[in-house]
Amino acid sequence: MDYVYGPGRNHLFVPGPVNIPEPVIRAMNRNNEDYRSPAVPALTKTLLEDVKKIFKTTSATPFVIPTTGTGAWESALTNTLSPGDRIVSFLIGQFSLLWIDQQQRLKFDVDVVESEWGRGANLDVLESKLAADRSHTIKAICIVHNETATGVTNNLPAVRKLLDDYSHPALILVDGVSSICALDFRMDEWGIDVALTGSQKALSMPTGMGILCASPKALEASKTAKSVRVFFDWNDYLKFYKLGTYWPYTPSIQLLYGLRAALDLIFEEGLDNVIERHRRLGKATRLAVEAWGLKNCTQKEEWFSDTVTAVLVPPYIDSAEIVRRAWKRYNLSLGLGLNKVAGKVFRIGHLGNLNELQLLGCLSGVEMVLKDVGYPVKLGSGVAAAAAYLQNTIPLIPSRI
Amino acid sequence: MDYVYGPGRNHLFVPGPVNIPEPVIRAMNRNNEDYRSPAVPALTKTLLEDVKKIFKTTSATPFVIPTTGTGAWESALTNTLSPGDRIVSFLIGQFSLLWIDQQQRLKFDVDVVESEWGRGANLDVLESKLAADRSHTIKAICIVHNETATGVTNNLPAVRKLLDDYSHPALILVDGVSSICALDFRMDEWGIDVALTGSQKALSMPTGMGILCASPKALEASKTAKSVRVFFDWNDYLKFYKLGTYWPYTPSIQLLYGLRAALDLIFEEGLDNVIERHRRLGKATRLAVEAWGLKNCTQKEEWFSDTVTAVLVPPYIDSAEIVRRAWKRYNLSLGLGLNKVAGKVFRIGHLGNLNELQLLGCLSGVEMVLKDVGYPVKLGSGVAAAAAYLQNTIPLIPSRI
Amino acid sequence: MDYVYGPGRNHLFVPGPVNIPEPVIRAMNRNNEDYRSPAVPALTKTLLEDVKKIFKTTSATPFVIPTTGTGAWESALTNTLSPGDRIVSFLIGQFSLLWIDQQQRLKFDVDVVESEWGRGANLDVLESKLAADRSHTIKAICIVHNETATGVTNNLPAVRKLLDDYSHPALILVDGVSSICALDFRMDEWGIDVALTGSQKALSMPTGMGILCASPKALEASKTAKSVRVFFDWNDYLKFYKLGTYWPYTPSIQLLYGLRAALDLIFEEGLDNVIERHRRLGKATRLAVEAWGLKNCTQKEEWFSDTVTAVLVPPYIDSAEIVRRAWKRYNLSLGLGLNKVAGKVFRIGHLGNLNELQLLGCLSGVEMVLKDVGYPVKLGSGVAAAAAYLQNTIPLIPSRI
Amino acid sequence: MDYVYGPGRNHLFVPGPVNIPEPVIRAMNRNNEDYRSPAVPALTKTLLEDVKKIFKTTSATPFVIPTTGTGAWESALTNTLSPGDRIVSFLIGQFSLLWIDQQQRLKFDVDVVESEWGRGANLDVLESKLAADRSHTIKAICIVHNETATGVTNNLPAVRKLLDDYSHPALILVDGVSSICALDFRMDEWGIDVALTGSQKALSMPTGMGILCASPKALEASKTAKSVRVFFDWNDYLKFYKLGTYWPYTPSIQLLYGLRAALDLIFEEGLDNVIERHRRLGKATRLAVEAWGLKNCTQKEEWFSDTVTAVLVPPYIDSAEIVRRAWKRYNLSLGLGLNKVAGKVFRIGHLGNLNELQLLGCLSGVEMVLKDVGYPVKLGSGVAAAAAYLQNTIPLIPSRI
Repeated sequence: MDYVYGPGRNHLFVPGPVNIPEPVIRAMNRNNEDYRSPAVPALTKTLLEDVKKIFKTTSATPFVIPTTGTGAWESALTNTLSPGDRIVSFLIGQFSLLWIDQQQRLKFDVDVVESEWGRGANLDVLESKLAADRSHTIKAICIVHNETATGVTNNLPAVRKLLDDYSHPALILVDGVSSICALDFRMDEWGIDVALTGSQKALSMPTGMGILCASPKALEASKTAKSVRVFFDWNDYLKFYKLGTYWPYTPSIQLLYGLRAALDLIFEEGLDNVIERHRRLGKATRLAVEAWGLKNCTQKEEWFSDTVTAVLVPPYIDSAEIVRRAWKRYNLSLGLGLNKVAGKVFRIGHLGNLNELQLLGCLSGVEMVLKDVGYPVKLGSGVAAAAAYLQNTIPLIPSRI
Repeated sequence: MDYVYGPGRNHLFVPGPVNIPEPVIRAMNRNNEDYRSPAVPALTKTLLEDVKKIFKTTSATPFVIPTTGTGAWESALTNTLSPGDRIVSFLIGQFSLLWIDQQQRLKFDVDVVESEWGRGANLDVLESKLAADRSHTIKAICIVHNETATGVTNNLPAVRKLLDDYSHPALILVDGVSSICALDFRMDEWGIDVALTGSQKALSMPTGMGILCASPKALEASKTAKSVRVFFDWNDYLKFYKLGTYWPYTPSIQLLYGLRAALDLIFEEGLDNVIERHRRLGKATRLAVEAWGLKNCTQKEEWFSDTVTAVLVPPYIDSAEIVRRAWKRYNLSLGLGLNKVAGKVFRIGHLGNLNELQLLGCLSGVEMVLKDVGYPVKLGSGVAAAAAYLQNTIPLIPSRI
Repeated sequence: MDYVYGPGRNHLFVPGPVNIPEPVIRAMNRNNEDYRSPAVPALTKTLLEDVKKIFKTTSATPFVIPTTGTGAWESALTNTLSPGDRIVSFLIGQFSLLWIDQQQRLKFDVDVVESEWGRGANLDVLESKLAADRSHTIKAICIVHNETATGVTNNLPAVRKLLDDYSHPALILVDGVSSICALDFRMDEWGIDVALTGSQKALSMPTGMGILCASPKALEASKTAKSVRVFFDWNDYLKFYKLGTYWPYTPSIQLLYGLRAALDLIFEEGLDNVIERHRRLGKATRLAVEAWGLKNCTQKEEWFSDTVTAVLVPPYIDSAEIVRRAWKRYNLSLGLGLNKVAGKVFRIGHLGNLNELQLLGCLSGVEMVLKDVGYPVKLGSGVAAAAAYLQNTIPLIPSRI
Repeated sequence: MDYVYGPGRNHLFVPGPVNIPEPVIRAMNRNNEDYRSPAVPALTKTLLEDVKKIFKTTSATPFVIPTTGTGAWESALTNTLSPGDRIVSFLIGQFSLLWIDQQQRLKFDVDVVESEWGRGANLDVLESKLAADRSHTIKAICIVHNETATGVTNNLPAVRKLLDDYSHPALILVDGVSSICALDFRMDEWGIDVALTGSQKALSMPTGMGILCASPKALEASKTAKSVRVFFDWNDYLKFYKLGTYWPYTPSIQLLYGLRAALDLIFEEGLDNVIERHRRLGKATRLAVEAWGLKNCTQKEEWFSDTVTAVLVPPYIDSAEIVRRAWKRYNLSLGLGLNKVAGKVFRIGHLGNLNELQLLGCLSGVEMVLKDVGYPVKLGSGVAAAAAYLQNTIPLIPSRI
């Protein structure tokens, strides 16, 4: 029943699902419970309060839905929009593409703003659209904070600024799947209307929870949104919030306790320290890529992602072969290049509950695989570059010295 | 973080989520994995094959969706029907009511056939509707196999027979949430088009998997069904089935391994033995209720449920108080009466991975609670009636003697 | 790999090893750690302090040894006595017999004071020995607090009183394996010199820790005791206590965290409430035995044990057959009759983290087995007697009403 | 309750306790069981058979004792020897020293043959002793196969050869704590009489099992050995082996299942492949040490250990500071220098269920710590040296390519 190649631990460096820390695994190691007993609502209450903290919001309403990121996307869209509504959506990689596909199948009228894969959202196009949209036909801007396929982080405050500049009332819906709890994300300060993530990403839990927060404006929109929805309907949740029983249908008891443990770990480390750790690990990964003489799929520094790095390989190498060998020979799980960048990039996920030596072990594995497939890398070069940076930037908190 | 009242184990007798056996808890006690590695598809392939066995189908196509029973309902409906489609749906308790609510919100034209709560689906009404429907405007019959709120099991073969008698092509969509893997259910033999269950019921797993099987006719219907759907769309699954990677979006690694263990346990015991065990435990529970001088909410023997018993209490007792005291004083989790039968019934769930002494312990607790709230029960009477029956009917397989 | 008969949970009612509560299982679900890191001593320090509380001692020194009860016995004896030393030891059942066997093989000069199995320690004989021992040749009195084979609890304060009455300096060494954390035990108040237990008994943990406390007088004795010992030598521990690293050799990291969780559960319930719970469950068990018309192996009420009940069966029944059938047919684990009472008694262990409904489930199983083997028991009779008592004595604390 | 510094995983590279693989953690995640049921003996039987395989013996008798390595030492000695017996014992580091201390406290007459720490057993001295011992006063040779404190592996076949050359009947007792299951060890072929290990070493389990095998000659010796013993007495085990119930006192149910899983993993990989993997990881570690310009504490290649490397640091560095910083700053657990080599060496354990990238991660951490404490190491140099070797020697089995 165990198909992962042994011996030793699997080195899990796909950009999700990510490594689950032991305290979270432990917390979920339990029998079911009656979710209508007084215990589950008491637990849930703490979770909903604390989920808001990782979105940096005090005004939004959280929803923890037994689904995946794809379901969370659907919940965000169908609760705020009506079929035929015009939305602007940025296509910058495979995951924004999939979201756009969903938007179209849900019958919205999507202005797709495409960028070359490896570049961020084209905000100039957004600006011209906003400038032209005097009658406010654009109902929402849909944007991924971090495109997991290319390792591109979009500039969300700039989107907010454009809307403000044009006094445009469109909602901002953000896919924060590979960002929230890892990248700097400030729902209230940046005026985001719906943001969402999945439990298996930076929260470092199993898959199974789609987590959203909806601003008061988004909640207001949900009252008139005509998209057909039942399972993903926020209203069913809001009814049960009022009753104090919280769940319109059965939640996973195990994931509730897992979320409690995951949040506790994040707060213990400090959310801003968690974000800073991701920044350091992301930078270290990029330094290794540079030392190997390879290019980042992300074309400009302003878009560099601190949760995933997509590495371009020379044309004579098939990046899928790198991923395959990493898994087979070194028990190292890397991310494939997807769609337009299939065969051209491999991806190193560096998000979630992770530390320096885990990353350096991964980088040493990537070096060996690169050599295996004929790329003239100097073993140790990437590790050295990453280690030099990590060593110099490690937080000098008293308990560590 | 643990809110369940101690000491000792919680006695979990709600009709779901149910007790998880240790081998399943163990199997899920693991880190995440890359679901795009060769390992996860290899595991998935075995699961999809084996899921068909518990539905007793060889011709249907299975879907294991990261959702709950409510999501599985939505998947069954939206993949086979178009807005405006006429369907016949039986209202016999809270869960059929919720499903009907979903059907209406999904914009189907629902002929609601209501029965008194405690009675099964009114098939006479179905017959007259079918007889009148020469032009086949009825596209589907929606029926719960087992209504969890009242402990009523519907006669599915009779539904099939009516459709056959009138050569009516309507689909049969079955909510098997509290039946599949516990009650006799035969998808192919009974000509069911879509059947579904949830992982936290008779499979004895955590919540988080909506499991469906779709007949070839249902799959055919999905090609023209116009209901808007993305997350729940079977087509996305079918594409990935063809690719051999199986998952259109991230599954829960833990639940996959848990499902493997749960199926292994069921096959080891033998599916028909599992069903027979539920029959015995259901009968034993009803004998206890009779010994206590109480009535079953289910009005006729033909509808008695072998997975949940809803017990009517005398008018001077509030059944919610029974549930509350059971939990507080005896660490016993019973099901509340819902909606029309709130305050009037409490429910004993006897489904999933459960044995005789667990049930007898529960019954002894119910007796004490009944006395606590002023009902003149003779302690030991229900236990005696149930034990006498269980002892005489215990399978005399060689390894047990 | 799983040999316990399914389906459902095993009903574990041997007098050890006992059921482990979920929080303890969870706490042990972890990787190894370096026991020389600062973390393990920090944890150990809290454990040693808290172990003293369950022995009700402030003056004694605790030792947590990676061994079983048998090893703890050996540690108690070899650290306080020299070969040839005269000791008085009470033989009242299989476990006192095994301890005496150990004492003799360790070359002590043992005055064995035997009682009929089912009776407590004969303190009259002790008194005459003390009276005769003007020159204080008796170095220690060895006594089990609770004889697990017969369900007999000895009167420890009476032993203390006799020694005081005769101003006799002999040490009192107590096997508290099936008593500490379950029966009233007061090391300091009763002047016990060495007391010991095992982790798999009332602490409700896995086997693997022998836990002892040694009074200042016992520690003093250890300085001159000439018994050869290394692994069990307290001195090695005391050296490492001084260093603050605590462990002379590798402890089980998992058991350390498990002990932390087990102690936390006990303190949360309240040690005296735990003891009172055992008293109630013990009494309930005896009421069931009486209702069945069977005799307790323990001959007088003053010796009744609240952790284990040995039930005498009629001569025409082989008690081993009861144990065998309980396991095979009902997944119920009962204790065999041992040695002199083999075939004559079966034992119900009712110690550790256990509640009312678990016990009643067990009793209902015993009733069925009794009937299976031809004993004319009325099903439900024992359950009724036990439940009536339990219901009336359940603690009326506010959170339970 | 969790004191290990986060975030991310602890990098556990002490030479025991070592990392436990997930399947073993899972196998132990369970409730207690009655060890007198038919299930536990059935499991035990398979374990005892399979334990012999990892010792490479068919003729010896295995004992799995609930204790640690220290207890296993005591069992080996007391079962085969009598007080006053002359033995030859090699002192080459802290663990051989501790064993000798035990031998002396157990009242044997120990000829201590000391080597400089960092050198292997002085077999020339053994030879002269054997040559002089015409009357066969030497009853046993005690030798550690692998001295964990210095990373020195002794030449066991050479010891056998000397005894054979002199037709000397002395027993060979071997501490295989940090060797068995990791280094080439052949009990039968090398004529070892008692060999032992602990569960927390190369078996990659928690602490708590002392595992021994005794040759027929050792068993014969046990019949006349006069050392006082009870807990560690093989005879008690042999009695229960005959009965088929196997356990003279309570075993840890969890460790039994854990051992089953650990053995299954080893056999799945292949014991000889496991040994070869240790050889490769050991060699890689030494290449890193060389690249760093540091010396191995082990003075000659013939003694190099493939399970632990003790690294000498320059005089101006305190090796304890390296260990402290590794833990605090990098969540890396290294072994301290002990006793004579305290402050002078730090140790890297590379035994148990471990793979290439885990080791390379560790080595990258060591490099950073070395730089932290002022040693002029080139970051990446050790990783490069190790990786180059590992990459070229990785087994080219079909499933890996």
